[in-house]
Amino acid sequence: MKRILLAAVCLLLATFCSAASAPATVEQWNVFELTLEGPGSGNPFVDVTLAAKFTQGERTVTAQGFYDGAGIYKIRFMPETVGEWRYTTASNRPELDGKSGAFTATAATKGNHGPVRVAHTFHFAYADGTPFHEIGTTCYAWVHQTEELQEQTLKTLAAAPFNKVRFCIFPKYYDWNHNDPLLYPYEGAPNKWDTARFNPEFFRHFEQRIAQLRDLGIEADIILFHPYDRGHWGFDRLDAAGNDRYLHYVVARFAAYRNVWWSLANEFDFITNKTTADWDRFFQIVQADDPYGHLRSIHNGARMYDNNKPWVTHASIQNGSAVVDFGRAEIYREVWGKPVVFDEVKYEGNIPQRFGSLSAEEMTARFWEGTVAGTYVGHGETYLDPNDVLWWSKGGVLHGQSPARIAFLRKIMEDGPPTLEPIDKWQDNPFAGVRGRYYLGYLGRQAPTAWKFELYKGGLTEGMKFRVELIDTWNMTITPVDDVFTVKKKAFLGDAAANYAFEDKDGKSVPLPGKPYIALRIRLVE
Amino acid sequence: MKRILLAAVCLLLATFCSAASAPATVEQWNVFELTLEGPGSGNPFVDVTLAAKFTQGERTVTAQGFYDGAGIYKIRFMPETVGEWRYTTASNRPELDGKSGAFTATAATKGNHGPVRVAHTFHFAYADGTPFHEIGTTCYAWVHQTEELQEQTLKTLAAAPFNKVRFCIFPKYYDWNHNDPLLYPYEGAPNKWDTARFNPEFFRHFEQRIAQLRDLGIEADIILFHPYDRGHWGFDRLDAAGNDRYLHYVVARFAAYRNVWWSLANEFDFITNKTTADWDRFFQIVQADDPYGHLRSIHNGARMYDNNKPWVTHASIQNGSAVVDFGRAEIYREVWGKPVVFDEVKYEGNIPQRFGSLSAEEMTARFWEGTVAGTYVGHGETYLDPNDVLWWSKGGVLHGQSPARIAFLRKIMEDGPPTLEPIDKWQDNPFAGVRGRYYLGYLGRQAPTAWKFELYKGGLTEGMKFRVELIDTWNMTITPVDDVFTVKKKAFLGDAAANYAFEDKDGKSVPLPGKPYIALRIRLVE
Repeated sequence: MKRILLAAVCLLLATFCSAASAPATVEQWNVFELTLEGPGSGNPFVDVTLAAKFTQGERTVTAQGFYDGAGIYKIRFMPETVGEWRYTTASNRPELDGKSGAFTATAATKGNHGPVRVAHTFHFAYADGTPFHEIGTTCYAWVHQTEELQEQTLKTLAAAPFNKVRFCIFPKYYDWNHNDPLLYPYEGAPNKWDTARFNPEFFRHFEQRIAQLRDLGIEADIILFHPYDRGHWGFDRLDAAGNDRYLHYVVARFAAYRNVWWSLANEFDFITNKTTADWDRFFQIVQADDPYGHLRSIHNGARMYDNNKPWVTHASIQNGSAVVDFGRAEIYREVWGKPVVFDEVKYEGNIPQRFGSLSAEEMTARFWEGTVAGTYVGHGETYLDPNDVLWWSKGGVLHGQSPARIAFLRKIMEDGPPTLEPIDKWQDNPFAGVRGRYYLGYLGRQAPTAWKFELYKGGLTEGMKFRVELIDTWNMTITPVDDVFTVKKKAFLGDAAANYAFEDKDGKSVPLPGKPYIALRIRLVE
Repeated sequence: MKRILLAAVCLLLATFCSAASAPATVEQWNVFELTLEGPGSGNPFVDVTLAAKFTQGERTVTAQGFYDGAGIYKIRFMPETVGEWRYTTASNRPELDGKSGAFTATAATKGNHGPVRVAHTFHFAYADGTPFHEIGTTCYAWVHQTEELQEQTLKTLAAAPFNKVRFCIFPKYYDWNHNDPLLYPYEGAPNKWDTARFNPEFFRHFEQRIAQLRDLGIEADIILFHPYDRGHWGFDRLDAAGNDRYLHYVVARFAAYRNVWWSLANEFDFITNKTTADWDRFFQIVQADDPYGHLRSIHNGARMYDNNKPWVTHASIQNGSAVVDFGRAEIYREVWGKPVVFDEVKYEGNIPQRFGSLSAEEMTARFWEGTVAGTYVGHGETYLDPNDVLWWSKGGVLHGQSPARIAFLRKIMEDGPPTLEPIDKWQDNPFAGVRGRYYLGYLGRQAPTAWKFELYKGGLTEGMKFRVELIDTWNMTITPVDDVFTVKKKAFLGDAAANYAFEDKDGKSVPLPGKPYIALRIRLVE
């Protein structure tokens, strides 16, 4: 009886196996999704191979497919150019093999600038060329909380200044976050997972969150591995085959979302059972499987990964000290020749750990120090909460005072040139910008009452005129100085530094309010 | 007639060709030199291959030979272990091939500690295990000056605190140094060198200087290429074959001197006609030819070489800014996981360029900042001189006030533990040392009147007792504080930083003189 039933099910499935559905048009950089029906018996996650070649003229892109449960297979594709695309599937199962079709990629609409790429060595831009001034935050386990709390987090993010959020696929077991997630990525139970059988529901939910972030204009910096498990669930100690299978599955599912960034790990070196060779291999799997080359990084604990390796697109650094004062952050730029994102510089909050006890002033100051070094800084918030809902871990609402100041900084970045470069590298000159045109300087914790108008000589010619604005980075005011400064080369007078400087022709200074956290914006009068 | 004469010369040579001379004993880590007579006709520099295998038990070391002119060939070898060594030569010329013999390496005598190696990841030690506290200086072109000036330089070095000196093989054409050298490394004339014919006299002279430095206990950080030529002589623009041949010849001649360090280049990126691939190849040639693995580095101009590459043993950095203040220098350690030597942090002097106008106080302060970051700093001096003899370029005598302070620092380093590690990495905690045992802190330009006794918790247990000394790094005094400090864990009281600190049990502070350039040495009372 059982056998007959099984045969009937198989027959039924076979009937549907040739069914395929796909849209006729999709917007450039959106997700084209081809749905196929195929075998549901055995273990489709490992028994079935599926991919498709997408072609447009001379260009061919191979996208990996994946099993989504209940006999459903999907192949997702992100068209990077408009116009007609044709595709053909390839599979080790005849019912999934050789399916072909076509669709049209239409022009991107408002708010869709494509994926973010590295631009100008140390910076980022969307695929359409729009500069991307990275301003990130961290909510490691927000997708593992109640649906209600997740919705609240999205609402908070919609009104916050952040254009990137870091979060984990695997749930987090750590202080203030010992609750189990609603869903798990595998079938099985803690420390007894069947790593060959994914839980499609978990991933569909996760994808919904990626898509919602995308629609808010927020990049999803997805953390593939992390150490905050320590055997509680066991996701930090899958075997090598399990790790690799997981990466293949994740990339097949997520890569077509344009706002995906791959963070190989958080505090990778605190995961004790993985070697440098493992991390190298993980990077290479992600790089090989992702046809779009989404950004790839790995976040350090106490030890740095070699970010010069070719598969690392940018540095994702934890080192708060590097943005405490001028002269530090820039060092990382030059050793790697890649964008530097300080994804953790400690957090605004009041927990007893020093990583989460920054004042809002200090959090804000670190953003500014990083910015005038030509790097990018990330936010996090760790205020104690009666329900243990700390933003950094669970999301929810923001309590701190730094996000408003970070929004203010973001506006200044967007109003400025596409990239800010240190004006006089490896000197104590806290200005970034574009020589001869735009200077953004930050005086940090100093509280001087005047700033002698003096700029590095590069890009300057005598007679150029500049206007100055005082920026109070804490009180969020911009005050134009009612004066124009005309530059001339500084006289030598035995001081070697003078040979590198231009000053105002009348030796003028800019009066300052004698308060900390003051920035200067200086722009060429054209 | 001509033919008969030639035949007679050949016959004469053949008679001598089997002649070989070598000492019967040589001290461990000294130079064993095998001298052979061979063909002097044709171009022995390129026509003749010569090497020898040196064996001791299971161990075989291959040393390359070289042509020293006038029919003389040499093979040099540095025995790294005592006892009998046997050797056999190999050559494409029968008269140089298959020569064998033996000698005994005797125990190293006083002052001979062997070559310097990387030790404890970020530091150096001699082969016999003696810590090497690197304290370098720079005299780029001292070997290209008059013999009298060279002798004066050696005399100055003999009394100076430096245990490493950086200098160039190729002469230097730059401000205050436009004189031609006494000798050139090739036959030919400026920009018309025969790069296939070396000038042995040049190299014999250079080797004499290496040996003299060795006998003074000074490492020779030999700069293989540099940009200070710009076509004047043309040594910065040899062709690829010329560059490679030069490296093979130099390594064959110099590698057996135990005090040799290979600096692939000074300001490598300012040499416009060489690519990263060239530098990689140069490193690999040196690495392959040098059987002793002498230290290898490359010194940057405005751009960093990837010091993570496996053939780089330590970083040789130009970035004065990194040692102007705390929190900067250490960044380089972690990104490379190798010793960091700041071979240029600008120089004490008074030239109109900012790279050579540091005060002695500033030069000294930079040494201290680097030291308490667990890195090493190099000295240079650029005081204007009526005869254009600037130490940094030509050697001569020292005029500055920093060397005495550097000697004072060196003594403190030698009196301390073998290595100084940052006590609390990536925090604003300017102490290096060994947790729980030894702390060396530097307060830099600050001039506080007291220092609250407080140390990072790592390595401490309650009840440990410490003594403190005040070090005036400028006036070179060490003043013991007449007190003993007993540590206890700091009370939390809502301040997260307190969770990471121990203080004196009675909350005591150390009175300070309210002057800049003060250091603290804190040692466990055992």
